[in-house]
Amino acid sequence: MKNMAPTEERVGIVVCAAYAEGRRIGDITLDEIPYALQREDSFVWLGLYEPDEALLAEVQARFGLHDLAVEDAHKAHQRPKMEIYGDSLFVVLRTARWDESAETAVYGETHVFVGRNYLVSVRHGASQTYRPARLGCERQPQLLAHGPSFALYTLMDFVVDNYFPVLSDYEDRLDDLETDIFAGGADRDSTQEIYELKRELVTFRRAVLPLIDVCTDLISLRVTHVPDAVRPYFRDVLDHLKRINDTLDTMREMLATVLQVSLALASVRQNEVTKALAGWAAILAVPTVIFGLYGMNFERMPELHWPFGYPLVVGATFAACGWLYRRLRRSGWL
Amino acid sequence: MKNMAPTEERVGIVVCAAYAEGRRIGDITLDEIPYALQREDSFVWLGLYEPDEALLAEVQARFGLHDLAVEDAHKAHQRPKMEIYGDSLFVVLRTARWDESAETAVYGETHVFVGRNYLVSVRHGASQTYRPARLGCERQPQLLAHGPSFALYTLMDFVVDNYFPVLSDYEDRLDDLETDIFAGGADRDSTQEIYELKRELVTFRRAVLPLIDVCTDLISLRVTHVPDAVRPYFRDVLDHLKRINDTLDTMREMLATVLQVSLALASVRQNEVTKALAGWAAILAVPTVIFGLYGMNFERMPELHWPFGYPLVVGATFAACGWLYRRLRRSGWL
Amino acid sequence: MKNMAPTEERVGIVVCAAYAEGRRIGDITLDEIPYALQREDSFVWLGLYEPDEALLAEVQARFGLHDLAVEDAHKAHQRPKMEIYGDSLFVVLRTARWDESAETAVYGETHVFVGRNYLVSVRHGASQTYRPARLGCERQPQLLAHGPSFALYTLMDFVVDNYFPVLSDYEDRLDDLETDIFAGGADRDSTQEIYELKRELVTFRRAVLPLIDVCTDLISLRVTHVPDAVRPYFRDVLDHLKRINDTLDTMREMLATVLQVSLALASVRQNEVTKALAGWAAILAVPTVIFGLYGMNFERMPELHWPFGYPLVVGATFAACGWLYRRLRRSGWL
Amino acid sequence: MKNMAPTEERVGIVVCAAYAEGRRIGDITLDEIPYALQREDSFVWLGLYEPDEALLAEVQARFGLHDLAVEDAHKAHQRPKMEIYGDSLFVVLRTARWDESAETAVYGETHVFVGRNYLVSVRHGASQTYRPARLGCERQPQLLAHGPSFALYTLMDFVVDNYFPVLSDYEDRLDDLETDIFAGGADRDSTQEIYELKRELVTFRRAVLPLIDVCTDLISLRVTHVPDAVRPYFRDVLDHLKRINDTLDTMREMLATVLQVSLALASVRQNEVTKALAGWAAILAVPTVIFGLYGMNFERMPELHWPFGYPLVVGATFAACGWLYRRLRRSGWL
Amino acid sequence: MKNMAPTEERVGIVVCAAYAEGRRIGDITLDEIPYALQREDSFVWLGLYEPDEALLAEVQARFGLHDLAVEDAHKAHQRPKMEIYGDSLFVVLRTARWDESAETAVYGETHVFVGRNYLVSVRHGASQTYRPARLGCERQPQLLAHGPSFALYTLMDFVVDNYFPVLSDYEDRLDDLETDIFAGGADRDSTQEIYELKRELVTFRRAVLPLIDVCTDLISLRVTHVPDAVRPYFRDVLDHLKRINDTLDTMREMLATVLQVSLALASVRQNEVTKALAGWAAILAVPTVIFGLYGMNFERMPELHWPFGYPLVVGATFAACGWLYRRLRRSGWL
Ligand SMILES: [Mg+2]
Ligand SMILES: [Mg+2]
Ligand SMILES: [Mg+2]
Ligand SMILES: [Mg+2]
Ligand SMILES: [Mg+2]
Ligand SMILES: [Mg+2]
Ligand SMILES: [Mg+2]
Ligand SMILES: [Mg+2]
Ligand SMILES: [Mg+2]
Ligand SMILES: [Mg+2]
Ligand SMILES: [Mg+2]
Ligand SMILES: [Mg+2]
Ligand SMILES: [Mg+2]
Ligand SMILES: [Mg+2]
Ligand SMILES: [Mg+2]
Ligand SMILES: [Mg+2]
Ligand SMILES: [Mg+2]
Ligand SMILES: [Mg+2]
Ligand SMILES: [Mg+2]
Ligand SMILES: [Mg+2]
Ligand SMILES: [Mg+2]
Ligand SMILES: [Mg+2]
Ligand SMILES: [Mg+2]
Ligand SMILES: [Mg+2]
Ligand SMILES: [Mg+2]
Ligand SMILES: [Mg+2]
Ligand SMILES: [Mg+2]
Ligand SMILES: [Mg+2]
Ligand SMILES: [Mg+2]
Ligand SMILES: [Mg+2]
Ligand SMILES: [Mg+2]
Repeated sequence: MKNMAPTEERVGIVVCAAYAEGRRIGDITLDEIPYALQREDSFVWLGLYEPDEALLAEVQARFGLHDLAVEDAHKAHQRPKMEIYGDSLFVVLRTARWDESAETAVYGETHVFVGRNYLVSVRHGASQTYRPARLGCERQPQLLAHGPSFALYTLMDFVVDNYFPVLSDYEDRLDDLETDIFAGGADRDSTQEIYELKRELVTFRRAVLPLIDVCTDLISLRVTHVPDAVRPYFRDVLDHLKRINDTLDTMREMLATVLQVSLALASVRQNEVTKALAGWAAILAVPTVIFGLYGMNFERMPELHWPFGYPLVVGATFAACGWLYRRLRRSGWL
Repeated sequence: MKNMAPTEERVGIVVCAAYAEGRRIGDITLDEIPYALQREDSFVWLGLYEPDEALLAEVQARFGLHDLAVEDAHKAHQRPKMEIYGDSLFVVLRTARWDESAETAVYGETHVFVGRNYLVSVRHGASQTYRPARLGCERQPQLLAHGPSFALYTLMDFVVDNYFPVLSDYEDRLDDLETDIFAGGADRDSTQEIYELKRELVTFRRAVLPLIDVCTDLISLRVTHVPDAVRPYFRDVLDHLKRINDTLDTMREMLATVLQVSLALASVRQNEVTKALAGWAAILAVPTVIFGLYGMNFERMPELHWPFGYPLVVGATFAACGWLYRRLRRSGWL
Repeated sequence: MKNMAPTEERVGIVVCAAYAEGRRIGDITLDEIPYALQREDSFVWLGLYEPDEALLAEVQARFGLHDLAVEDAHKAHQRPKMEIYGDSLFVVLRTARWDESAETAVYGETHVFVGRNYLVSVRHGASQTYRPARLGCERQPQLLAHGPSFALYTLMDFVVDNYFPVLSDYEDRLDDLETDIFAGGADRDSTQEIYELKRELVTFRRAVLPLIDVCTDLISLRVTHVPDAVRPYFRDVLDHLKRINDTLDTMREMLATVLQVSLALASVRQNEVTKALAGWAAILAVPTVIFGLYGMNFERMPELHWPFGYPLVVGATFAACGWLYRRLRRSGWL
Repeated sequence: MKNMAPTEERVGIVVCAAYAEGRRIGDITLDEIPYALQREDSFVWLGLYEPDEALLAEVQARFGLHDLAVEDAHKAHQRPKMEIYGDSLFVVLRTARWDESAETAVYGETHVFVGRNYLVSVRHGASQTYRPARLGCERQPQLLAHGPSFALYTLMDFVVDNYFPVLSDYEDRLDDLETDIFAGGADRDSTQEIYELKRELVTFRRAVLPLIDVCTDLISLRVTHVPDAVRPYFRDVLDHLKRINDTLDTMREMLATVLQVSLALASVRQNEVTKALAGWAAILAVPTVIFGLYGMNFERMPELHWPFGYPLVVGATFAACGWLYRRLRRSGWL
Repeated sequence: MKNMAPTEERVGIVVCAAYAEGRRIGDITLDEIPYALQREDSFVWLGLYEPDEALLAEVQARFGLHDLAVEDAHKAHQRPKMEIYGDSLFVVLRTARWDESAETAVYGETHVFVGRNYLVSVRHGASQTYRPARLGCERQPQLLAHGPSFALYTLMDFVVDNYFPVLSDYEDRLDDLETDIFAGGADRDSTQEIYELKRELVTFRRAVLPLIDVCTDLISLRVTHVPDAVRPYFRDVLDHLKRINDTLDTMREMLATVLQVSLALASVRQNEVTKALAGWAAILAVPTVIFGLYGMNFERMPELHWPFGYPLVVGATFAACGWLYRRLRRSGWL
């Protein structure tokens, strides 16, 4: 492990490095892994991106990974979870990124194998590279000296920190929706937006919620793979997740209320429209009745022969309409 | 057990085979079962399809099954469950298959008795044969060597894998429903489809949900019938079930929202219709009033004698209607 | 206990018999109970129906029952429960029977005291006699040899089996309701039926749900009054209760959905009616306006003097109405 | 303690008596309490009603009560709870009484301190005197010999028994509400009554529900202040509370359903009214159109010159209206 | 520690004092802290307000605080929680204050570090000073002698006591809302107020609810940082929190009911309006039909030639209208 050769540029391998006492010794090839694993206090960090079956099989052989976990890492489309296989952990994370053009979240998936002296991450889909996270923890060798479980924390922290902007964008969409509904009333578009926001929040929540169980397990003493000094770091991730979950719960509840409120506003609007309809019908009934009255063909209708009968009747009719209009206006029907 | 005769072709028996060290030794008859059971490291796999009472009684005697479990296996119509009878397990599964013509799921039922050295499956109703599952695990003798509990895993995995296409078909129906409602609005048919989909999802959920408890129990150390090396396989089934359950939960929640959204859309539509009604009533009030006015029989109505009174009044009336129409149109009432 | 006299015919006592090694030795009087209780491996089965206070006090003294339990058995109107008083159990069951004429369930109540060597049942109200259950378990002496706890199972099994027809009748009522609502729409009667069915299901559920806890307790090792060999029988009762409870949960959920669906259907119907109203108003506006037009009294209205003015105008009016009718029909307003 | 003087008549003290072996020895003054407390097998029962701060401080000093508990007892407005302070218990109860004139429940509060050899009750607000309860348990010296915890049971039993008439009166109000809604339909008053009943049930439930936890704790072996022989008595109180809670749950659920049902009935009613409106509009359209037709001023309208034109047209019009009325009636629009 | 110098006036430091045996010895500087910490039975109380990073780093160094906790205290925007770091506690509280002008609650945040012999509080945002709380507990030296955990209780008690006026102001807003809705019916403003109150209650609840877990943990024996004599004080805070939470639950439930009730009232109102519309349409149909009748131009209409035909017909028409009006009035349509 002394003369470490530069990493071969192999498709699917993003990084393959050896660490000792929290410091990066250098990049290694897959073939050098067994030598790197022998040394006490050192560990190997292998990052893969959508590896093909052959590469995954080779990695499985090198680290002795369980068939079922490798199968999950290959097929992806898993829900977030942590599974213990003997002395190694298998963690599945869903990564989220906001797509500005579509105004929606896009999801990726990361699978992490953590052993006594290795961490293997397998990245799928629309996730960002973990390079910033890796560089960040290389700057804290005293913490990275705790081994692969601290590296796992680094990845989870990175994933969870990326949830916050997504959450914030969804909060903006809910705010817009509220403004729309209270300003303009509920219409087709706002109703459909309620539905779509609901569906996206449910999807987002399914990325976040299972991670709470994962963190709780990593903190608990039952999982002996995490040194005591690293546990508070996972508790910090848990704390972030709880804050996200609280916000999601609030949004769910407010969204349900928005839907009910939009129904109530539609009822209020319907009342207004029907009252306006009734009010105008009442006003128009006046000329209809009076004009009908003097359209009758009786022989003896004295008013018809009055010199000012016509302007008088028309004037009285409009006066009655005006009076009725003011009265209905005052009582809130118009 | 050396010279194993070919299985008798008995109605109700699908397969009766002996396995040793994970490999199939050969088919046996019911009478040979006691000999097969004697040998260490071997087990008997007996598959039945809707057996009559006599056959079931014979099987009960051969394996020493409990009265209550056999009664369940005979009557069927059980809910999924796992029960421990001393050193044997009794598992009830509901199988699901999509009926393309009826666009609905069809259910069957399977009862499995698992002892130290036997597995007896009893299949009822519309379920597929377990032959592919059996052949599949015969190709992995190193795993089948773990004994009947691995065979049980094979069956459960097969049953649960068959839930996915059903789930996916239900998701299609929900998608169609959404498209219908947002395109054309809520009508009688979509409302009834919401109700029927709800009912079918509840039924499907009752097949899936209890299996989560069954798998959780099989993984827990409390159940000593499963070797440690086989537990991860049941955990994998559990993982699939949780994914199905998550999707079902999401669909339930979205279906409830669809119902509320369709109410909201109906309110929006009602508002539109009432406004249209009111708007047209307002427009039609103009000629009604004016034509009524000049239908009056007053002696002195100067306009009646104007040469162009008639076209003027009619023209003014239609102009007023046109102006009103444009105004109502602009303010969104028409 | 050899020369057992025939039971005195006392009001309130249905049966009082001694059993040894699972076989009925014979009927005894209340006074003979102490002798019967002395013998090892034997137990006394006493069945009461609405006993008066004096009889209950005598029975209490004979078996040493606790004041609080006897008070419950006397007053009835308890919720189903199991209570442990030292080495005896006190179980309260609600029995249900379908009243065909009223199309509703009728409830009774049974209180059971179970000691090391006795079972006392106290029956109230509309419940069936337990004679068939008692005869049934007398036919299985090898099971009845397990003692009074197996007799208790027999009673509970009998009670729970009688829930199934009630459940099925409620399912029929729900089916009828669905048919009504989707065929004819929601009206007063169907709305009231939803309410009443809801209320009755809640009542039925209160009979069933607490029994699940009772059975769970009887199965648990915490309750030492039940021999291990009898526990699977109570688990079987529990299984039936869970199936009933599942069905009740489904019915509750569907009933809640029916209520929402009936609201949605009323909205759909309201839309249809308002659209029809608006459509016909539009059609009728045509002759109203045109006939009003030619009712005006202008001197110079050339059409009035055309020879075929009248039939032309009337014909044109009806043609316009016809055209409007077809257009509204096609666009779904009529 | 031999020559026990008659109790001083001090404001705030309802009773102060010493008990030995379950029998009342006599009334004592506050100053005599230390002597009474010395004697083995005896205890002091002190009943206070809205004591002033000075009296409460004196009592605190006599019995060595904890500051926090005394503060609660002084300020009142606590929620029901039980707290353990070393070897003494502090219990808070809410008492309920039905106010016939206001048709609503009125609440009071009682605070009970229970030590090894004393019980101090502090009563606030609209609660009844505990005299009947005290006299009742003085009639059962063999039970009262269990000490202050049995006296505590007596008080709690008295409080809980007084919940039943309140519950029953609320059930009557719900019944009245149902009758109103199904007979006359939902109006402003019934809607407001739903709201008020809901609010009162929530308040009542907050008095009852925490007591369930209190009783459960008093029964559990964790609380060593209650002798085994007294535990079944608290279990009996728990049983009453569970029955009350069940009924309250049912009422809550039915009240929620009533609210939804009243919405559904309003929709049904709205449909009926709109259909009636549309139906009458249709009928009235007939004479409007026909009379308008013959009001036109065409020169050549042959019908106008028929000798029986007028009665014929009027007759035909009314015949058409009649026919339309019957048709609409039959199809349910009128 | 004898000659304690007056505290330097440093920005961000509100108080820095040493306490021994529950009594304040005097103010100290940050540099004197190590000496103060050496003495047995003494502790340091340091109060900060929005400290800059440099000050916080210095404090961290003095007390050996964990990086993650200090990071939280610096960034604020945490949810209420308690975390254990070895032998020190880290508690996050949300403080609430009612803003009279905006009629809404304003929130601040406090972070508390509690060690064996120190308490450091970091205050952010709109919270009140803790000076009254500190002075209050300095008046009870026998309690403060329990050390920093009693000081922590003092702060939490102060924070929670300040929730009550906020809660009471929200209750006033709900009362106003109820009065509005039952007096004037549901309109746009009341619907929006329901929504806003809902949102603010959810926010308030998120300050309160997690504190219940914090208190429960502080009471439990699992947390060894709190002496037994101090636990009842945290239980008292818990009791206050439970009362607040109960009230919030009630308000949530009533607010949800208000929303439904406002929908029901809108339906009732809609029915009234539609019935009024239909009723007036019916009344106006009478003159419309009759006046239309006598507007027809038939040659032979005998009534037209009656001398009193005109007043007779007009009179009969108005009489019919009057009769109809009274009938509709009586049947509740007008
Ligand atoms: Mg949390
Ligand atoms: Mg949360
Ligand atoms: Mg949360
Ligand atoms: Mg939630
Ligand atoms: Mg929620
Ligand atoms: Mg919830
Ligand atoms: Mg899971
Ligand atoms: Mg799930
Ligand atoms: Mg799930
Ligand atoms: Mg669910
Ligand atoms: Mg759900
Ligand atoms: Mg959910
Ligand atoms: Mg079950
Ligand atoms: Mg169930
Ligand atoms: Mg269930
Ligand atoms: Mg349920
Ligand atoms: Mg339910
Ligand atoms: Mg359910
Ligand atoms: Mg529920
Ligand atoms: Mg209960
Ligand atoms: Mg309940
Ligand atoms: Mg309950
Ligand atoms: Mg409840
Ligand atoms: Mg409830
Ligand atoms: Mg519920
Ligand atoms: Mg509470
Ligand atoms: Mg609470
Ligand atoms: Mg609560
Ligand atoms: Mg709540
Ligand atoms: Mg709640
Ligand atoms: Mg709630």
